Order: sequence, then C-alpha cells, then structure tokens
Amino acid sequence: MFTAELVADPYPSRCNTEPEILPRLDPVTYSRWHPGAPVSKAQLSTFDRDGFLVLDDVFDAEEVAFMQREAGALLGDPRGLETETVITEPGGREVRSIFAIHRQNQCMARLAADSRLAGVAYFLLDDDVYLHQSRLNYKPGFHGKEFYWHSDFETWHVEDGMPRMRALSISVLLAENTFNNGPLMLIPGSHRSYLSCLGETPEDHYKMSLKRQDYGVPDELSLAELVYEHGIDAPTGKPGSVVIFDCNVMHGSNGNITPLPRSNAFFVYNAVSNRLAHPYGVDKPRPDFIASRQPEPITPVAGRLHGQAPQWP
Amino acid sequence: MFTAELVADPYPSRCNTEPEILPRLDPVTYSRWHPGAPVSKAQLSTFDRDGFLVLDDVFDAEEVAFMQREAGALLGDPRGLETETVITEPGGREVRSIFAIHRQNQCMARLAADSRLAGVAYFLLDDDVYLHQSRLNYKPGFHGKEFYWHSDFETWHVEDGMPRMRALSISVLLAENTFNNGPLMLIPGSHRSYLSCLGETPEDHYKMSLKRQDYGVPDELSLAELVYEHGIDAPTGKPGSVVIFDCNVMHGSNGNITPLPRSNAFFVYNAVSNRLAHPYGVDKPRPDFIASRQPEPITPVAGRLHGQAPQWP
Repeated sequence: MFTAELVADPYPSRCNTEPEILPRLDPVTYSRWHPGAPVSKAQLSTFDRDGFLVLDDVFDAEEVAFMQREAGALLGDPRGLETETVITEPGGREVRSIFAIHRQNQCMARLAADSRLAGVAYFLLDDDVYLHQSRLNYKPGFHGKEFYWHSDFETWHVEDGMPRMRALSISVLLAENTFNNGPLMLIPGSHRSYLSCLGETPEDHYKMSLKRQDYGVPDELSLAELVYEHGIDAPTGKPGSVVIFDCNVMHGSNGNITPLPRSNAFFVYNAVSNRLAHPYGVDKPRPDFIASRQPEPITPVAGRLHGQAPQWP
Repeated sequence: MFTAELVADPYPSRCNTEPEILPRLDPVTYSRWHPGAPVSKAQLSTFDRDGFLVLDDVFDAEEVAFMQREAGALLGDPRGLETETVITEPGGREVRSIFAIHRQNQCMARLAADSRLAGVAYFLLDDDVYLHQSRLNYKPGFHGKEFYWHSDFETWHVEDGMPRMRALSISVLLAENTFNNGPLMLIPGSHRSYLSCLGETPEDHYKMSLKRQDYGVPDELSLAELVYEHGIDAPTGKPGSVVIFDCNVMHGSNGNITPLPRSNAFFVYNAVSNRLAHPYGVDKPRPDFIASRQPEPITPVAGRLHGQAPQWP
C-alpha cells in the first residue's frame, strides 16, 4: 500500500511560490483491450489520447425519462436530504449540486452501479472500483455561473489524499449539452500534465470551493500553454449520453445565459488500490459525502434502469 | 418627419407592469435586390429572415493585421482618448470598450466608411446612413463577463429617442469567435418581435448599463418563448469576418473562461430619416459619444484599408 509518509509526493501542489507543469507518472488506461471489453479498441485509444470519451445514447428514452423524474424530484424538493449535501448557487437559493446521491436515492444508487458506467470504470482502471464521490449537478438557465478550469485530481490529492491518478469521472447527461448552454469544456491531452498550483489551502476550504474555486486554481500562463498545444473540446450531447473523463484532465465551463438548463448525474470511480490516504496539503480531510473514505467495491449490475415515478408531495 | 409628440409610441417599453411581446411594425430590409447590389439575393433574404448575416473573409490578412495593431494600441494605452469613452470591466481596470472610435482614430474612421460596411448599410436601409454609435470591444480571456440578452433598439428607442427600426449594427471580428470563447449569440427571427420590458429607467442609467444591464432586460418567459420558437445561433468566424445584425434582433453572450480573448470593431448605422428624437422613456438623452445626435451622412469609401503601424510609446 502507498504510504504518504514514506515517499516524496509525486504530485505536489499549493506548496510552491511558482506554478509548475509536472509530468503524469501514472498510466491513463490500466487494461489492454480485448474482445468483449466494454469499450471498443478505438474508444480505448481515444480515452488514452484525449483523457475523455463521449458515448452517445447509452441510456434509452425511457431510462432518461426515469432519471429525469428522479433528478427533478430531488432538485425541486431537497428537504428530505442531508442538509450538508445540498449546495446552492452563490448568492442564491437555487440548488446547484446534491452530493452523495447514491446514498440518498435508489435510482441513483442503481445508476452508479450500472455496468455501462461501473463496468467501464472497472475495465479502464483494471481494479475493483468504489465511489469516491457522487452528485447531481444542475446549472440553471439565464443565470448559470461559470466553473473555472481545474484538474479534479489536484483537489482530490491535496485535500482528500488520493495518492495516484487511477480514478475517473462519468457524467450522465440529463439535459442536452449544446454549444451555447455552458457545456463542459475539456483540454484534450491535458491529462498528461500536472499543473502544480500556487498558494496554501485554508481550513474547511471545501465549503466555499463547491460554489467557487479560489485555491487549486491553475495559473493563466500554464492554461494558455495547454490550450495552445491541445485546443479545447466541448462535447455536445443529448440526454442519456455519457462523458467519461480522466481524473487529471483540465476542464471547466462557461456561464449560461440561455434558457436551457444543464443537468447531469456525476460519479467518480476510484480504484480500490488507490483509496484515500492522509491529505497531501491539508490537515483535515474533507467530509465523507464529498470524498469517501470507505472503499466499498461496487458490483456492476447489468440490465436496463426502470422504476416507478416518485410520488410528488 | 416623425414627431414623437404627435404619434402614440409604437414601441413602448419600461412603462408597463407586465412584459409584452409586440409585433415589429417596420421593414427589415428596405431595398429590393438588384444586380450589382453589395450582397447577393440569398444574403439579402437571409438577413431579412434571420435578422443577421455573417460575411466571411471580408477583410484580408493584411487589413486584419492593420486593424489589430490599431485596436491593440488603443486598448493597451487609452490615455490619449476622451476619458468618458473608455469603459472598464466591472470591478476591474481592463478596458472593455472604447466608444466613438471613429472620432478618435483614423483607421477606425476609415473602417466605418468602408463601402464593405457603410455601402451594405446604405443598401439594406435604403437611405443615407450615419453612425449612431461606434466602439471597439474587448472581452478578455479567462475572466470575460457575460452580456445578457437584449434588443439594442429597445435601449436606443427608450434612452436615445430612435423612432423606428431602420438601423443595423456591423461587427468586424478582430479575434476569432469560437464556440467556446463567449461568442455573440443571436436568436434568429427574434427581430420581428419587440419585447416590451418592465421597470422605469433611472437617471444616467448608461453609466452602469455599459458595464452591466439592469433595465431594458427582457423577461425570462418571453426569452424562453423566442428560443423555443427560433433556437439560438452563435456564428463562429475568423478575424476579418463581419456580422451584420438588425437593430431589434435579440442577442447576448456568455462569459469566457478560455484563454482566447474576443475583440471586434462595432458600428451602428442609422438611416438619416430615422435620426434621434426626444427619448421615449427618459428625460435626458444619453451623451453624444454613445448616441450621436448629429446625423452626418457617410460617403462610402471603396478600396482596401492600409496604413502605417502606430508608433508605440
């Protein structure tokens, strides 16, 4: 097992006075492709090269309608949920994210374990996987705020103690991503560079950072270099499509003044062998609903999603 | 001549307690197409139908370089300019717009009169045209702010006293518009609906509205209706391309976290017969550098732009 105390940190951040671009020391894809793998050979090499992969129409119309009903009920009336898991828009009361949805909603628990998600994560990471984090995201129309560029791994490493890059995120689109409604933007290929950020992390930083990122923010020069080299991709997609992205790919999103809201269910799968150690940059790790310290392996579940519509109050 | 005092306002706004969608009472294109016209028949009907038209590669690489040098010099060192014409980013010092550039810079004066712009305006409006407004816009990378949906005509009518819809804007791209750097978004076809807005206009509103729009803001339901009916277009284009848009087409732009800034030179041509009257919703009209009350007809100038690079201090 990796022990933080015995090895120099391979991914230092928020401890230097100058930003730095460091090389990735870990693989991106941990499996070799084989017949029967849950992604095609071309998809595997796209993920390896770009650090993300879009799969269209993974869930059919009926499954999408089911997920949308469940998500709508959670976002519209979050009163039954654990208070701390419900994050509102800065300066507003509209719900922006709900964390730990797999623990609070049956549909989301089933979705997290779906073989079309967990099975792919298992294959790409070549290990048992567990949910490091889950959430439902909602970016309202008209006044949706931007989310600045970041590598998830940087935060998970510094604030949560994730040792190495052996994790990935899967976003299940519940509303259409168009070019114009502030879709996820990614810098393809950026997952091979680790941007070591400036500054120290204040205590309980997560309470603000879920709304607005002030620490763990890459510097503009490094970002410009990455974009100059790799460009920017903003995959569009219909509800039921899926975006799989590496833990270290640089991503963000613009604000959204269109009437079209964005919404997705978001799951972070981490390899069990890569479970959290002591955080690399703070004393107190973030709470469990943001970064799970219980690496319970998921058993992928095959078959379609189905369920009763929730009873509206 | 149209006299505001004798006729009921055909385009009331900011005087009702309920928002309203009113029909456009004026033509969009005032000329019939004929051989030798400065746009093709198809372009004319596109403009009439959508309320905007994109013309690629209007200016060649050398002309673009010349305009970019001039624009860069103005934005980078605005000290020689009239102070009130220089608008900074909200809460920042970075220059966001410079108004009345045709009065303050030879290259911009020549550009405003260029037959590829003024000649097209003359044709589409079928009248002598003059510059209602000119400006240089710069939306920085990384932290560019959004600009919410609006019809320019609504403001020009209420705050400046522009009687009817017989004006258009031409934006000359000085940086590339991509899908991701907060490009101009337009609702095609929205120019045929006039969204009467709520609220009264405070005194000297323009001082804030150039940075952030709080009045003359269309309501969300009307906007959603327009988008549902017509969709959203966000034309991309390289420097030297031109976007021509009707005075009443609904438009706005998202923020921009990409490293790619946006910049354009922006000219509003109004028909001389449509010169400003008394404002329809305020007592004191906005100052001349924002809304000219001197309808001096422009004589279109043929030929390429050329000039010396400015001397940097």
